[in-house]
Amino acid sequence: MSPAIASQAKTAFFRSRWVDAPQSTEQLDPSGLAPGFRAAGVAGGVKRGGGTDVGLLVCDAAAPRSALLLTTNAAAAAPVRLCRAEADAAAIRAAVVNSGNANAATGEQGYRDAAAMRDAAAEALGLSGRSIAVAETGTIGVPLPVQDVLVGIGAAAGALREDGGEEFAEAIMTTDRAPKLCSVRCDDVTVSAQAKGAGMIEPHFATMLCFVQTDAEIEDPDAALRSASANSFERITVDGQTSTNDTVLLQSTGEAGKPLPAGLLEAVLLGLALEILADGEGATRVGRIDVTQAASADEAERVARAIANSPLVKASLHGRDANWGRIAQAAGMALAGEPVPELGPARIDAAELGTDSAEAHVAIRLGRGSEGAHAYFCDLTSDYVHLNASRAT
Amino acid sequence: MSPAIASQAKTAFFRSRWVDAPQSTEQLDPSGLAPGFRAAGVAGGVKRGGGTDVGLLVCDAAAPRSALLLTTNAAAAAPVRLCRAEADAAAIRAAVVNSGNANAATGEQGYRDAAAMRDAAAEALGLSGRSIAVAETGTIGVPLPVQDVLVGIGAAAGALREDGGEEFAEAIMTTDRAPKLCSVRCDDVTVSAQAKGAGMIEPHFATMLCFVQTDAEIEDPDAALRSASANSFERITVDGQTSTNDTVLLQSTGEAGKPLPAGLLEAVLLGLALEILADGEGATRVGRIDVTQAASADEAERVARAIANSPLVKASLHGRDANWGRIAQAAGMALAGEPVPELGPARIDAAELGTDSAEAHVAIRLGRGSEGAHAYFCDLTSDYVHLNASRAT
Repeated sequence: MSPAIASQAKTAFFRSRWVDAPQSTEQLDPSGLAPGFRAAGVAGGVKRGGGTDVGLLVCDAAAPRSALLLTTNAAAAAPVRLCRAEADAAAIRAAVVNSGNANAATGEQGYRDAAAMRDAAAEALGLSGRSIAVAETGTIGVPLPVQDVLVGIGAAAGALREDGGEEFAEAIMTTDRAPKLCSVRCDDVTVSAQAKGAGMIEPHFATMLCFVQTDAEIEDPDAALRSASANSFERITVDGQTSTNDTVLLQSTGEAGKPLPAGLLEAVLLGLALEILADGEGATRVGRIDVTQAASADEAERVARAIANSPLVKASLHGRDANWGRIAQAAGMALAGEPVPELGPARIDAAELGTDSAEAHVAIRLGRGSEGAHAYFCDLTSDYVHLNASRAT
Repeated sequence: MSPAIASQAKTAFFRSRWVDAPQSTEQLDPSGLAPGFRAAGVAGGVKRGGGTDVGLLVCDAAAPRSALLLTTNAAAAAPVRLCRAEADAAAIRAAVVNSGNANAATGEQGYRDAAAMRDAAAEALGLSGRSIAVAETGTIGVPLPVQDVLVGIGAAAGALREDGGEEFAEAIMTTDRAPKLCSVRCDDVTVSAQAKGAGMIEPHFATMLCFVQTDAEIEDPDAALRSASANSFERITVDGQTSTNDTVLLQSTGEAGKPLPAGLLEAVLLGLALEILADGEGATRVGRIDVTQAASADEAERVARAIANSPLVKASLHGRDANWGRIAQAAGMALAGEPVPELGPARIDAAELGTDSAEAHVAIRLGRGSEGAHAYFCDLTSDYVHLNASRAT
């Protein structure tokens, strides 16, 4: 890739002022996976209209290290329960996915269907069942058309490519307007990632799926993934709803013989998280709230989430209304019963809500201590209502 | 009032199947106040367009007993802080109100303005300052045009009438589509009440103002009001937002020489609470969620609120979509980390979401114990977004 194209591509993915990628990060063709990985996506017939809806992702290295984060929702979907009970989260070789059906609240049959997906992928790829993660997304409570998915898995296994990232990203899309993926290189290490979002997005940790591949050597993949998620997927909210299917998978071959450059994984995940927000259901703008001078870290977090989840603040973001009063109200609600100095314009920066910028920064200084927290959110629009008030979604 | 009119009027106010008024309750002209009370509302010039925006309510009995509930929001408005610091909540004679401006986040000047309103009312009515409650509602963070309000108070003092309930109710309206008031009689006791709602409505305890007058003898007005609010205003949510200005005032003269009939105050407050919901910003339908078989009362409450506040469930209510999966998802989010039986259709009744009824009942049985809770909510519509995304509100 020429430097000019690399620079343009870099702008395209790391376009947010809130993402600090390492200086020397180069953006590659986003469809290209990190060395040692292949992926595919096919139309299996789950989605009405024939879209890409079944995907496979495989690591050709014999012993990759991995980490798997799964939703905390107590009504977890069948694939999440299957991964939790039966997969070896630290040694995942492959992932099998479908969109259009979440396989959630589908009972014992749903669990068997998720297991059948895993078994079909294991057989097609010649791998053990414990080394395979299953992830699904879409409508809740509808039986999975598992035969369609199984046929799709067979087709996907025959279509695996080193540059299959985009097809794989398409296979996890639901109401997303576009596939979300990137491939970057920095200090001789490559990281590729594919994600989906749209509705039911909230810290803990966003209704979303994300798959990350790298050839870096990662000593503790679980710690690396948790830390990077804490500053990205755990910081975003579309509508305050934690989904039944959230899954993030990190796989590393270690074949680059080098560690992950500091900040690279964080930048990739935050870039994807902000793409998820910008593409939140009906969303047109993204906001960031910074809470400072809180009495405790918990308090800062609580206030940041109250503001990020306030439908009034989100409507102000949509309406270009620099309404600091709604920030004060949401903060005051989160601080019920506490002594708080007056939360007026001297303590609240809401001016960017009133501009046309795609990203708006908002800040509040609580005057109660020295702790802080931040959160990202999107605007609330009529399209969110239209998307969610119809049976089609 | 003839029995026929009484019956029609009763249907008009107690129209919800969820309100159990005592059998013998008769509805009076809703503008009429309980004996011993007078009220007025005038156009003071706070609202653009010249609507009624300044009101007075006075009890002519020398020593009424009263109770005052105020918002828990830490960014409480000036009138709330004034009432908390300087009013004798158990012996309120009069209330002075305005709409169009919340006098919230208005600093020391706001506090002085609220005190000036109180002092003007005290002088006009010949009462002590400590016996007067001040309540305001409207835009946050804009200085109160206090001179207009003071002139309005003078005009209202000259317009007090025993049937001034409707004008008074108009004086507290903001984005409400209609004034909310009632006057009922049961077992020789009269109760009249006026309320406003619209946006920022959430338990703890709904962004709203409500004034209740009665000639019943109430031994412990504070306990009576808290108990009735716990089953009405504390059970409703429009958008999960606790306001800076919530105020509920109960005054009783005791001159009827009889106690409140059991359930009457609850029925009046729940009737008003459901009117507030039905008139929530953009709302077209009201829902009730009943959570049963929870492991604890706290858990039942948490699940009920998660469902009532879920924008996805609220969008389903709007879209006539019997989407039990979203009920399961919201419940599962509230129960994160707990062992929960599968929350499928066998445990969730969501059928009424899919009907055209103005009221939809939804239920979920958690299978974890024997505690329960319920909450009322309204649908999420494009109009909510339109109302809140424009600077005009």
